[in-house]
Amino acid sequence: MSLPDAPLRYELMKVDAVTGARLGRVTTRHGAFDTPAFMPVGTQGTIKGVLPDHVAATGSQIILGNTYHLMLRPGEKVVAALGGLHRFMSWPGPILTDSGGFQVFSLADINRITDEGVTFKSHVDGSVVHLTPQRSISVQNDLGADIIMSFDECPRADAPREYQRAAVARTLRWARLCLEAHHRPQEQALFGIVQGGTDLALRDECARTLIDLDFPGYAVGGLAVGEGFEATRAVLASVTPTLPVQKPRYLMGVGFPRDIVMAVAAGIDMFDCVLPTRNGRNAYAFTASGAIRLRNSRFTSDSGPIEDGCDCYACRTFTRGTIRHYFFAAEMLGPILVSLHNIRFFQRLMGDIRRAIGEGTFDRWRRSDPRAAMGPSSAEVAAASAVEPSDAPRAPMETREEPS
Amino acid sequence: MSLPDAPLRYELMKVDAVTGARLGRVTTRHGAFDTPAFMPVGTQGTIKGVLPDHVAATGSQIILGNTYHLMLRPGEKVVAALGGLHRFMSWPGPILTDSGGFQVFSLADINRITDEGVTFKSHVDGSVVHLTPQRSISVQNDLGADIIMSFDECPRADAPREYQRAAVARTLRWARLCLEAHHRPQEQALFGIVQGGTDLALRDECARTLIDLDFPGYAVGGLAVGEGFEATRAVLASVTPTLPVQKPRYLMGVGFPRDIVMAVAAGIDMFDCVLPTRNGRNAYAFTASGAIRLRNSRFTSDSGPIEDGCDCYACRTFTRGTIRHYFFAAEMLGPILVSLHNIRFFQRLMGDIRRAIGEGTFDRWRRSDPRAAMGPSSAEVAAASAVEPSDAPRAPMETREEPS
Repeated sequence: MSLPDAPLRYELMKVDAVTGARLGRVTTRHGAFDTPAFMPVGTQGTIKGVLPDHVAATGSQIILGNTYHLMLRPGEKVVAALGGLHRFMSWPGPILTDSGGFQVFSLADINRITDEGVTFKSHVDGSVVHLTPQRSISVQNDLGADIIMSFDECPRADAPREYQRAAVARTLRWARLCLEAHHRPQEQALFGIVQGGTDLALRDECARTLIDLDFPGYAVGGLAVGEGFEATRAVLASVTPTLPVQKPRYLMGVGFPRDIVMAVAAGIDMFDCVLPTRNGRNAYAFTASGAIRLRNSRFTSDSGPIEDGCDCYACRTFTRGTIRHYFFAAEMLGPILVSLHNIRFFQRLMGDIRRAIGEGTFDRWRRSDPRAAMGPSSAEVAAASAVEPSDAPRAPMETREEPS
Repeated sequence: MSLPDAPLRYELMKVDAVTGARLGRVTTRHGAFDTPAFMPVGTQGTIKGVLPDHVAATGSQIILGNTYHLMLRPGEKVVAALGGLHRFMSWPGPILTDSGGFQVFSLADINRITDEGVTFKSHVDGSVVHLTPQRSISVQNDLGADIIMSFDECPRADAPREYQRAAVARTLRWARLCLEAHHRPQEQALFGIVQGGTDLALRDECARTLIDLDFPGYAVGGLAVGEGFEATRAVLASVTPTLPVQKPRYLMGVGFPRDIVMAVAAGIDMFDCVLPTRNGRNAYAFTASGAIRLRNSRFTSDSGPIEDGCDCYACRTFTRGTIRHYFFAAEMLGPILVSLHNIRFFQRLMGDIRRAIGEGTFDRWRRSDPRAAMGPSSAEVAAASAVEPSDAPRAPMETREEPS
C-alpha cells in the first residue's frame, strides 16, 4: 500500500457488537501493525536486554522510544547521524516516540514550568535543559519515529481542579505549537494527547479542541498515574466515543492485562508499558495463572518452563530452576529471559484479544479468560505469596520508566 | 559414529609439515568438535549475556563450565536434578568442566592445603568448603560434562622449585584418586593435567607419570599465570612431544590470539579463555587490526560495524555508535553485543587456523596474518590509545575468571 502524502493509514476492520473494541491495522512508512497493539518500551534505544530479533520473535510489531532519555544521551543529533532511530536500534519496523513530557514531569528535577516549556536538570550530567513543544518536536523529527507525540503537561493525579484546568490550557497551547513546529508531516504522524485528569468535562473540552486541530491520531494521557481503575474506566468511557472513528487511539503507559482489556473494550487501539520488561528484570514472570517470582525457593529444582504452554524462546529453552539460578548468580540471562517471556505473554494476550474481536467473541472471551482480570493486586498477591523471608527484598510491581 | 565404551574419540586428520600443528576432530556423546578448538567460558552455567542460540551461531562447538562456581551455586545436586549441565544451560553440544582447582587456588580464601585436599571459604555465603579429588570428580559426575578434569594443585608462577615439586607430587597423587573416584568413565572423558611450572624436567616427569595412568586426554595447566610468553612456549615445546599422538591436548586458560597460534604450532588442540567475554563486557572489541575500546569518543557517530567484514550478529546489526551509547547508558546490549562479536572473532580465528592446517599453509598463514601476533601488549596499546582522559577508567585486559 502506498502512502503518497500521509505518514499513517488506519484501517478499521471490525467493531465489536457488544463492547467498543476495535480490530484494525495501522500502516506506516516502516510497515504495519495490527491493533489493538502492545508496544514494548525501548527507553534508551533498546528493549532492555532483548536483542531485536528476539523482540520481533515475541510478535511485537511496533516499539516505543523515549524522547527524554534519547535527547539527553546520546543526543538526537547523534541518533540522526547514525541514520535515525530505526537504524540506531536496528528495528526496521514501526516506532513511536513519546514527547518527553511524562518523563520531565515525573522523573526530572524540575526548576521551572512556564507557558513556554519546562526547565529541568539532566539526570545524566546535571546540566540545565529547556524542553519546549518546539524542541520536543525538533528532537522527534531528528529521531525519525513513525508516530510522534505532542508535548503535553502531565499533572499528578491528585492535582487540584484549577491546576488541571491550567495544565489542559497549556497542553492545548502546546499542541498547536507542536503542529506548527512539525517539519516532517509526510513521514511522521503527530498524535495529540487528551489530558484533564478525572474531570470528564475537562477531558471532553480538551478532546474536542484537539479534534478540531485534526491530528492523524489521538492519545489519552494522564491516566494510570494513581487515579484508580474505576476512574480510568470512567474517563475512557467518556473520552473515546468523542474521538474520530477513522483514527487510531492510544492509551499511554497502560498497563496490566486487566487495564488493557478494559481499555480495548472502551475502543482503545494502542498501548505501551514497561511492566513486562521492568518486572522481568525483577524476576517477576506473568503467567495465565498469575504472576510468579522466580527467585522463590520452590523453583530451585523446578524443571518446567516459566509458563506451561508458552511458545517463547525462554520457555522453549530454559527451566525455572536455571532461570532462578541466573537471578541469584546475577547473570544477565535472568533478566533477559524473563523480559522476553513477559513481552511474549503480552503479545499472546494481544493476539488473543484481536482474534476474539475478529470472531465476534471478545465480550465472552474477556469474561472467561483469567488473564483479563490480572491487575496489580492479583499480581502482587501472587508475587507476595511467592516470596519467603530468606529471599531478597521484593521489588514492587512498577509500570513506569526509571530515570536511567 | 557409535561410542560403545569410550566417552570420547579423537581423530587426527593432519599434522602440519613445518610445525607441530594438528587438525583433528573430537567426538563425544553430545556431538563432535573440530580441533584446534576454542571453548567460550560459561562460568556459572551461562556464557555471560549470550543466549545459547547466539553462542552456537558464533561457531562455538564446545563450551566450558566451572566446577568451583557451580558446586557453590546452585550446587551440583540442583544441576543434576534439572537434568545435568547440558539441559541446565541449554547447550546440547559438548561441554567440558574444569576441576575447580584453578579457582580454589587463585580465587578462594584458602584456609588449608593438605595431601587430602583444600579447605576454603565459599565466596557465595562464607561457609567452609572442603574440596578433594574425590569431591571434584563427584561434582563433575553430577554435572555430567563430556570432558572432565583431574583435580590439580596450581601453584603461583613464582613459587619456589621445592613447592613446585611438592605440588606435582600432590597433583599426581590426586590424579590417581580422581581416576578411582570417576563413576561415569563410559560417558565422561577424564583428562589428566600436566603441572610443573617452568621446570622442564618436572613437567616431563609429571607428563610421563600421567601417560602411564592412560587418561583419554591431557591438559597442560599452570601456564599463562605470569611466567611470560617465551616460558610458555618453552614448556609446550618440551611437553607436547611427550604426549600421546592419538589423544587430544588441552592448554588451560589460554589466551590471546598470539598464544593460541603459538600453542597450535606446538601441537595443542583445545583452548579456553574468558578474554572474549570479559573484555567484551568492558567494551574492548577484538578486530584484525587490533583491539578497540568502544567507549572511545571517536566512535560516537561511527556508523560502521565493530569490525569491517565480520559476519557476527553484532556487526551485521549494530553500529559502533549505538554500541558505544549502550555502554554509556549501562544497557545490557553493550556487553552482550561485544561479547558476541569477540567470541565470533576467536571462532573465525580458529576456523582460519584449521583451514590453514588442512591446506598445508599454517606456517605461512601465521607469519602473514596480523591476528597471529595479537598479544596482551598489542591489545593494550590499542586499547590505551583508544581511551581519552574524559572517558571512564580503563579496565585491564584480563584472562581469568572472576569469583562471582
